[in-house]
Amino acid sequence: MGDDASETPSAQPMGAVRAMAVADRVTRSLGLVIERLAPGEAMARMTVSAAMVNGHALAHGGYIFLLADTAFAYACNTRGATLASAAEIVFVRPVSEGEELVAEARERVRFGRSGVYDVTVRGVGGDVVAEFRGHSRPLRSPAE
Amino acid sequence: MGDDASETPSAQPMGAVRAMAVADRVTRSLGLVIERLAPGEAMARMTVSAAMVNGHALAHGGYIFLLADTAFAYACNTRGATLASAAEIVFVRPVSEGEELVAEARERVRFGRSGVYDVTVRGVGGDVVAEFRGHSRPLRSPAE
Amino acid sequence: MGDDASETPSAQPMGAVRAMAVADRVTRSLGLVIERLAPGEAMARMTVSAAMVNGHALAHGGYIFLLADTAFAYACNTRGATLASAAEIVFVRPVSEGEELVAEARERVRFGRSGVYDVTVRGVGGDVVAEFRGHSRPLRSPAE
Amino acid sequence: MGDDASETPSAQPMGAVRAMAVADRVTRSLGLVIERLAPGEAMARMTVSAAMVNGHALAHGGYIFLLADTAFAYACNTRGATLASAAEIVFVRPVSEGEELVAEARERVRFGRSGVYDVTVRGVGGDVVAEFRGHSRPLRSPAE
Repeated sequence: MGDDASETPSAQPMGAVRAMAVADRVTRSLGLVIERLAPGEAMARMTVSAAMVNGHALAHGGYIFLLADTAFAYACNTRGATLASAAEIVFVRPVSEGEELVAEARERVRFGRSGVYDVTVRGVGGDVVAEFRGHSRPLRSPAE
Repeated sequence: MGDDASETPSAQPMGAVRAMAVADRVTRSLGLVIERLAPGEAMARMTVSAAMVNGHALAHGGYIFLLADTAFAYACNTRGATLASAAEIVFVRPVSEGEELVAEARERVRFGRSGVYDVTVRGVGGDVVAEFRGHSRPLRSPAE
Repeated sequence: MGDDASETPSAQPMGAVRAMAVADRVTRSLGLVIERLAPGEAMARMTVSAAMVNGHALAHGGYIFLLADTAFAYACNTRGATLASAAEIVFVRPVSEGEELVAEARERVRFGRSGVYDVTVRGVGGDVVAEFRGHSRPLRSPAE
Repeated sequence: MGDDASETPSAQPMGAVRAMAVADRVTRSLGLVIERLAPGEAMARMTVSAAMVNGHALAHGGYIFLLADTAFAYACNTRGATLASAAEIVFVRPVSEGEELVAEARERVRFGRSGVYDVTVRGVGGDVVAEFRGHSRPLRSPAE
């Protein structure tokens, strides 16, 4: 599996992220589509299904997180094999069943082999639904 | 739907959280079980299924978030109808397919009708898998 | 000081931020300078003094937070009188005594009268020292 | 400098935190007092001075962060020399000039040589003023 820390991404990390995509059962089971992939960037799309709706008849925040987190995971894996170490999310407005959401992940800063990524989740009209920030670290070195 | 801000919870909010549970398709579709429910507290259990595994053969962080977020939602809805406004999560160790996880949510502080809840997610042996912090606000008043 | 070219800015919010600046003893006591102010944006500059250095001979993270938080406060007060309700910070690299830091705050999203602001703190060479995200809410309505 | 991951702390890390205290100019310049120090725990006290008040005549959130961050720094340095890598804070209620604040830091979880600490800041009456969560990593290994 690709492991890369260079400034300009070689083919290796993009290979890593492609291997990841092939093995990724989560995106398929959710009907989540990766639409764009570039060094440090990714765009993912998902439609809120009936199974994602909570007791208030609104999309469970966890699925909005899942969409953002997936865009983040693809974006940071373009830099080599990484894991999410932490994340924060702000829910801007409620989301209803049937809505289509788009998450755009963008690298904010990289230091060592760690990174901070911002993901904005938008509805069809382009209005912001949630703002997510993810923190990545290399896959190999454990917790610390 | 129950609306309550008293120190000692009346039956009303617990009624609200029960109504929420009945309507909650998310927990059922994930095989997520609410095991305990008390004022300001909730415990949820989930087994990591094959559909929750990502490209690194580990549980997608989004599902660990979903479990924690659900325990949080149940805990804060014991205080009246609320929504999650924001959340943070730290992933402490990777989780594999088939592992059973338990999330315990506990109210940390309430102010006005907002609140902060801590959720610890543990594996079978009791070791910490993730730490989550959720922020709640009343359902009625919108974003602000 | 005022630099205004807003969305639909009345004179009022910029007036509010000017009143705030006049009364602000924190910035003066820290030698913190507000360099730029525009609707939803602010830039602040500070030199790390001997009093800001901790036991490891590095700038106390709290002062880097203070700089970022001040830029955030000025930026969101261009939108009317607001308070910080929450904030997150990532420390990217250690900072030494004598270093000059610049914090740039920029509105990320506004909803109702709440908002999310990103602040990047940089050293003289332009390298990122810290990433901050602040959450604002209206001054009047209390915690909720 | 002490490096320790045992459950019961050796004298070494406590030595490290004492050395840190001696060199710490921040606490002295702020009149900040470390009142209690135990493995994984610390308590700090500070009175809000005129220099800490912002343009709304309330304590600048940055100083409340500074107090919490200091309690966190002392608590995590009882485990060996560490640095803060990130932190989140929620401001629960405004604080006025002259108020005395107490911050109690407590280790929530340790993994490898990283850790998560919770700090609650209270006013004189014991009511919560702010909730802080800090993330620590070893001093030696850089960003990642």
